[in-house]
Amino acid sequence: MRVYFDNAATTNIDERVVEAMIPYLKEMFGNPSSIHSYGRETRTAIENARKIIAEVLKVSPSEIFFTSGGTEANNHALNCSVRDLGVTTIISSKIEHHCIGYTMDALEKYQGVTLKYVNLLDKGIIDYDHLEELLKETEGKYLVSLMHANNEIGNLLNLKKVSALCEEHGAYFHTDTVQTIGHYYFDLQKTKIHFISGSAHKFHGPKGTGFLYINPEIKIGPFIYGGTQERNMRAGTENIYGIVGLGKAVELSYTDLTKEQEYVQGLKTRMIEKLKSEITGVGFNGDYDGKSNFRVLNVSLPKHKASEMFLMNLDIAGIACSAGSACTSGADAGSHVLEYIGADMKRPAIRFSFSRFNTSEEIDFVVDKLKELYVGEMVA
Amino acid sequence: MRVYFDNAATTNIDERVVEAMIPYLKEMFGNPSSIHSYGRETRTAIENARKIIAEVLKVSPSEIFFTSGGTEANNHALNCSVRDLGVTTIISSKIEHHCIGYTMDALEKYQGVTLKYVNLLDKGIIDYDHLEELLKETEGKYLVSLMHANNEIGNLLNLKKVSALCEEHGAYFHTDTVQTIGHYYFDLQKTKIHFISGSAHKFHGPKGTGFLYINPEIKIGPFIYGGTQERNMRAGTENIYGIVGLGKAVELSYTDLTKEQEYVQGLKTRMIEKLKSEITGVGFNGDYDGKSNFRVLNVSLPKHKASEMFLMNLDIAGIACSAGSACTSGADAGSHVLEYIGADMKRPAIRFSFSRFNTSEEIDFVVDKLKELYVGEMVA
Repeated sequence: MRVYFDNAATTNIDERVVEAMIPYLKEMFGNPSSIHSYGRETRTAIENARKIIAEVLKVSPSEIFFTSGGTEANNHALNCSVRDLGVTTIISSKIEHHCIGYTMDALEKYQGVTLKYVNLLDKGIIDYDHLEELLKETEGKYLVSLMHANNEIGNLLNLKKVSALCEEHGAYFHTDTVQTIGHYYFDLQKTKIHFISGSAHKFHGPKGTGFLYINPEIKIGPFIYGGTQERNMRAGTENIYGIVGLGKAVELSYTDLTKEQEYVQGLKTRMIEKLKSEITGVGFNGDYDGKSNFRVLNVSLPKHKASEMFLMNLDIAGIACSAGSACTSGADAGSHVLEYIGADMKRPAIRFSFSRFNTSEEIDFVVDKLKELYVGEMVA
Repeated sequence: MRVYFDNAATTNIDERVVEAMIPYLKEMFGNPSSIHSYGRETRTAIENARKIIAEVLKVSPSEIFFTSGGTEANNHALNCSVRDLGVTTIISSKIEHHCIGYTMDALEKYQGVTLKYVNLLDKGIIDYDHLEELLKETEGKYLVSLMHANNEIGNLLNLKKVSALCEEHGAYFHTDTVQTIGHYYFDLQKTKIHFISGSAHKFHGPKGTGFLYINPEIKIGPFIYGGTQERNMRAGTENIYGIVGLGKAVELSYTDLTKEQEYVQGLKTRMIEKLKSEITGVGFNGDYDGKSNFRVLNVSLPKHKASEMFLMNLDIAGIACSAGSACTSGADAGSHVLEYIGADMKRPAIRFSFSRFNTSEEIDFVVDKLKELYVGEMVA
């Protein structure tokens, strides 16, 4: 048995998405910017994908811009807010994904942007009162960038609340929705946000493609310059089959979303309960029983003789999970998220993240394996 | 009969490339940054692709960085030369692709970079003497950015000459090789270049993937910030099957490259000769019979009653070709390349661009069709 519980890192592609992509990978290869028939058929496919995404978000297709993924989309939003909107301060948190944190650091270093960080309450919850204080005290033009669901601990931001605060104080609002597009409902008519980002491979779509939504009230220019693609907002020949796959993955995700939410939340709840009953001293990082992404569970295990071997042993047992963000696995650093939320860094943390393709049998298998591998080795 | 003669815009994918990609599109989906087995198998695939490309260019795999395509690679090289290498002047030409030209304009506008343009001789040939003058007169750190093969007229740069000039004057040298990777041999040990760029879909690989080569003597940072992918040079979950396809397309291209070069040059020569004999007054833009990309032929036709209808009529006849760069087809502007090389803008220009999948029968068909559509309509 091989179990994939690392769906926050990436997901398996839905075979219906592959089917939708194949014709555009093979015979329909024209450059969508070409005016001949080869180009027109791929242009149509791209615009169809754009329409699907726009409908889901309740926005106009002209507000969706395809990118190479969530990281590029987030870089675009932050960089071009500074360059084109005159943003001089960015208010964010210390537990954002590095594509926000490191972009902010670069904007501070090279553009002189002021960075402010909102305090975190217990369990890593955003201190909305402090956010309001920061909004009140900040002068000039500023951008709030707070992620919708934390990729490591699953904490969910109250989008409505932050949107209202930003609106009241005249701030631009960007939220990294890479972990939630395809998994949560959005209505950008009701909740005003200036930028959101999506990445297809986080919801059973292909890698290498994503999008940036830009609120039509604001005018920014390209981050990547060149041809007239994406109405001059993002140059480069379009990743056609990627975009087709992105559109299909969005369509499939929202077809049965409520069912998925309930089903996957059920898996998460089952795992919480089983872990609590099977492993004495188990804990959970983040707001796991509060406002939390139903797909992510960050487990804090009691101290262990050979913690560093633990993920490897799970891997040998056929279980794929993560110590934190996959994006930082190459770095020799611990999780900045767990550090900033004040987690006990001596306790091993494992992120399990689920999808609609997982089963309750897998949950049981993993908890049993965890118990078998772990309990005997616990530090007394 | 449907004829695709727009291979400078994009190419059909080789079916062996698709075959190589499919497993990574389907079952092997792990995030290459993940340390578990799903991640390890995709990590291996990426490093294998990197090795293939490095071997072809005669460089180390550590000097190849995957990007979302040629446009991003070129943006990366130019932006980060200014930010990280202290480049204050860029010397280029007025006939570069817009991903160079517009990036330069932005660097001038936002970073105060000085832009200098080398003169063009007859047929759009780079004036190497003037380039040397510019190199002599320029102070501070500077970058020369000149494309290897012009995407519209096919003119080839003398890489060895420009490399030697840059070496002599201490300039950094970037060349946009998007039209030539996969079609020409490179030996970066013998010809020193600081940056080159490649895009898989220009040589029968997939769209949405490319690379930037960075000479190990220079140290630049990321253009897109975030995770530790690409050894901290390019953040974002890797487009795995895209990268696998890129590697396969490079491998296939260089397996029989000399044969391809001869075969496709044969098609181009046949078209030139047939056009000359069939259409009185036909001409060619660029250095077509000199140092010219064997894949591109820019035909200058005698004046015509209804020129603007002409590409459409060719399209109706099943022939895909282009008025210039596909990337600017969405814009209401004529070709900046033809304008700057001093072409007669009143004569219709058509770019035919060929691949190893084209045939001499197609050449004959297109010339016959061209004659049929055109000759009767010529302005007396």
